[in-house]
Formats: sequence, C-alpha cells, structure tokens
Amino acid sequence: MNIGIVGLGLIGGSIALDLRSRGFDVFGVSSRQQTCDRAQEIGVVSEASIHLSDMAAADLIFICTPLEAIEPIVQKLIPHLSADTILTDVGSVKTPIVKAVSCLWQNFVGGHPMAGTTESGIEAAVRDLFVGRPYVVTPTAETPAHSVEQVEEIARLLGASVYRCGPEEHDRAVAWISHLPIMASATLVAACDREGDRDIVNLAQHLASSGFRDTSRVGGGNPELGVMVAKYNRVELLRSLSIYRDSLDELIGDIETENWQALEQKLKLTQQARENYNL
Amino acid sequence: MNIGIVGLGLIGGSIALDLRSRGFDVFGVSSRQQTCDRAQEIGVVSEASIHLSDMAAADLIFICTPLEAIEPIVQKLIPHLSADTILTDVGSVKTPIVKAVSCLWQNFVGGHPMAGTTESGIEAAVRDLFVGRPYVVTPTAETPAHSVEQVEEIARLLGASVYRCGPEEHDRAVAWISHLPIMASATLVAACDREGDRDIVNLAQHLASSGFRDTSRVGGGNPELGVMVAKYNRVELLRSLSIYRDSLDELIGDIETENWQALEQKLKLTQQARENYNL
Repeated sequence: MNIGIVGLGLIGGSIALDLRSRGFDVFGVSSRQQTCDRAQEIGVVSEASIHLSDMAAADLIFICTPLEAIEPIVQKLIPHLSADTILTDVGSVKTPIVKAVSCLWQNFVGGHPMAGTTESGIEAAVRDLFVGRPYVVTPTAETPAHSVEQVEEIARLLGASVYRCGPEEHDRAVAWISHLPIMASATLVAACDREGDRDIVNLAQHLASSGFRDTSRVGGGNPELGVMVAKYNRVELLRSLSIYRDSLDELIGDIETENWQALEQKLKLTQQARENYNL
Repeated sequence: MNIGIVGLGLIGGSIALDLRSRGFDVFGVSSRQQTCDRAQEIGVVSEASIHLSDMAAADLIFICTPLEAIEPIVQKLIPHLSADTILTDVGSVKTPIVKAVSCLWQNFVGGHPMAGTTESGIEAAVRDLFVGRPYVVTPTAETPAHSVEQVEEIARLLGASVYRCGPEEHDRAVAWISHLPIMASATLVAACDREGDRDIVNLAQHLASSGFRDTSRVGGGNPELGVMVAKYNRVELLRSLSIYRDSLDELIGDIETENWQALEQKLKLTQQARENYNL
C-alpha cells in the first residue's frame, strides 16, 4: 500500500517515519521545497514534492496540515485522486472538518492521533511518537466501513490505542480534557498579571513553584493553537467554559459564606474524580 | 544554640535532620509518643518527648504543626519559656498567625519555608528539603531585629533563599501562585464531573493526557489543605478569585463574540507573562 502524507511537520513526519520503517512506500507533499528536500535527506519519506498531483499513486493519504488548511488542500487534491483513495486527517477538532471534507470526498475518515512534543516542524519528527497514545477515529454513518478499518489498522501499526466515536463526541470530550484546561490555565496567568502592586508581582514571581508551574503550563502555550481550538470547537468550548464558570461561582460562594463543610466536600469529590482519569 | 521543634512531620522532621547534621542540639515534641520514639530511632532529633515543658532549654523553637494548632500550642508553650526564647512557625498563611501569636509572644518571627513533597509524617523527613527553595520571613514593625536575623540565618543554613516581607504581602503573593491555582485546578475537575453523558465522561477519562494531568494536579490534592488555606487566607483568596472570574468572563466574551484578535492578544500576553515566573 502506498501512503501519502500532506504536511511534513511533527505529526506528518512522525507518521511517515514509522510507516516507512514498517515497509510502506511513503510519499510526502509540503508547500515548501526546503521541507521536501530535508524530509528526503533525513529519510522521513521515500520521496517528496511540492505538487499535490504526485499524490495520484497513494492508496491512503494523511492530511497533516493545520486545521484551517485541511478543506482547501482536499479541494486541490481531489482532481488527482482515484475514487477508492482513502483520505484521513489528524486535526484536533473533528466536527467542522468531517462535515466539510465528507461533502467533498466520500472516502474520508476523520482522525486524531493524540500525541505530540513541544517541538514542531520536520526536524521534530520522531519514531514511535504514537505508541501507547490514543488515536481517535471519527466516522459518520456514511463513512465506508472498509476505509474506517483501514485507518484503524494503520493507527494500530503505529502502536496507538484506537478509539472510535462520532465527531461530536470527540469534540465534546476534548473540550473537557484539552481545550478547557488551556483556557482555565491561561486565565490563571492573565489574572495574576492584573495584580497592580509591583512588589507583590515580583514576590509572587520568585515564590512560584511546581503548583503554579503545572497549573499555568498549557495556558502559556502557543497562542495560535489556543485561538484555533476556540474557533473550531467554539460551541463545545463555550459549553464547558459555562459549566466551569458555574462551578467556580459555587466554590467562591462556599468561601464567601465560610461554608467549609461544602468546600471540603467539593475538594474531596474532586480528589476522587481525578483518580478516574487515565493520567 | 539549642533548637526545639514542635510537630515532627515532613517539615519539622526535615528541619531537624538538617540542623542536627550541622551540629545543633535538636529537641523534638510531638503529641504522639510513637512519633517521638520513631524520630529518635531514625535520628531525626537528639531527643523527643510529648511534653512541651521539655522545650525550656531551647533558644529557638520551630512550631511545625498544622495552621490551626499553632496558636493553642504557643499558649501552652509560653509558661515554659524564658523571655529571650525565639519562636517561629512554618505555616503557609501568615497574617492571622502573626497577628495572634505576636500578641502572645513578642519574640515571634513568622516564617514559611516553601518546600515539600507529596509525602507527610516523620517517615517523610529528608535532608536538604529546603536547598534552593524560598524561605519567607514575615516580621512586623514590632518584631525584634535580632530575632528576625537569627531565623534568617538558620534558613540560610538550610540552604534556602530568604525573602523578607510583611505577613500581608506574603499572603497576597501566595494567594496568586499557590492558593488560586488550587481552586482554579479543582474547579476544572469539578466542572468535568458535571458532564451528564457517561459515554463522553468515559471517553474524556481515556483521552486525558499531560495537559489535563498538569492543570488538574493541585486541585486533586489534599482536601483538608485546600480548606485550610481558604479559611486562613480567605480575604486574599477571594480577591484573587474575583479577579480570576473577571478574566474568565472576558475570555468567554471574546470567544462568544468571535473576537479572535482579542483572544490571540490575551494568549500572547499570557505566554509572555508566564516567562517572568521563576519556574
């Protein structure tokens, strides 16, 4: 089977590396010639070019571009595909992507390999990035079953744990565990930044330790990524933020009214609930 | 100089270990005979007893009990002290402690060594726990200067970086970097726990990764500790929570109105602001 990868960054490059090492022919496309040259040089792909037309021979194509580029890329790619070519993507939000791309190409399987590093770009591509990580596949009722199975088989070859659900379920679940944490964490830093007394700010910056470091980490991440998930998963993110605000108001209420029993009960439930997560 | 330690847990035990190894006589008091026996057995203290009267020979006494026990312990301790005995504590909130204890004993220096592990109790005591960690000393205008210097000297002997500020400044700074993070983090888990669809909860629990793990960590910690900081640092915590809620409302507003430029600006400032913390 010939594999195509459009977008040779951390995710596309790492998928390419792993599949090449498992004996597949992997062909890459990047919009930049320099990336193509480098990808061939370090052996991430068998061949690479800047022309989507070179994807004609691929049986399964991974679209590994940022979210906003997926639909336009598929539109340009379609003239070069045979009807049984399977398309899949690796975007971190699924409902709008699956809705848009399924209309363009019936043989599309939405996917989300949940792995990464703090690095990006082709130089960041590594082997075994997906081993033991979740790989969510989000077919609709219309997605051809054999295409879903094909993508899941490749995901398992990468060593990932495959989860299958609808695009809406995916987006609601990742709003909770990925997108809401970014916003709650960013708000922590934004709030601290509003302290008007510079002596307090200076002292706080020196006293900050692992608790602040961990709680603020994802909020201090890539701003473009934060905006992108807010744009694409807006409805689910707003829903989770609204529930978060209600929970916050209740907690503030307990402290205002000195209802220590209620606060302790909340923190006990929190401690227990967290143990159910696969952390 | 004779050192007394009241409360032989992680902090008291670790201070004792370090000071013994630097040649001080360290006498410990615990309310439980078993803890006294164990502290002597593992060499944390030179001697230990359950009687506060045995603190009479100490020149400097560290009160290393939970916050709520500090004032009652000092009341019981006073009849056994000579006027030049220096008292200090290690409580994580300072204003109410300094206010209460300074009235009882003039020679009291509030302190907060900011170190710990996830363990507790005498068995958790370790050497060099305070090396490179902040040790905040919070005198008032009435605190005798030589007593402040004495406590700071010992803090430096432990390898800590000493910060001196008023109790109110300490409490405002730690509200930002320690107590607010606990509440923002706990609220994340509490909000997720309100998702009504069990399939989504199950999926979210499986997909949760390092972002959720880090952001929820301090919120999933010891509930008694969370209630204690809320009780003792209530005013400053409420102030920081109120500013946090305002910041959250603004961020939600940006997403609701699709003001992506404003959101990106916020997240960029957040990313920059976080770099000023000593993490």
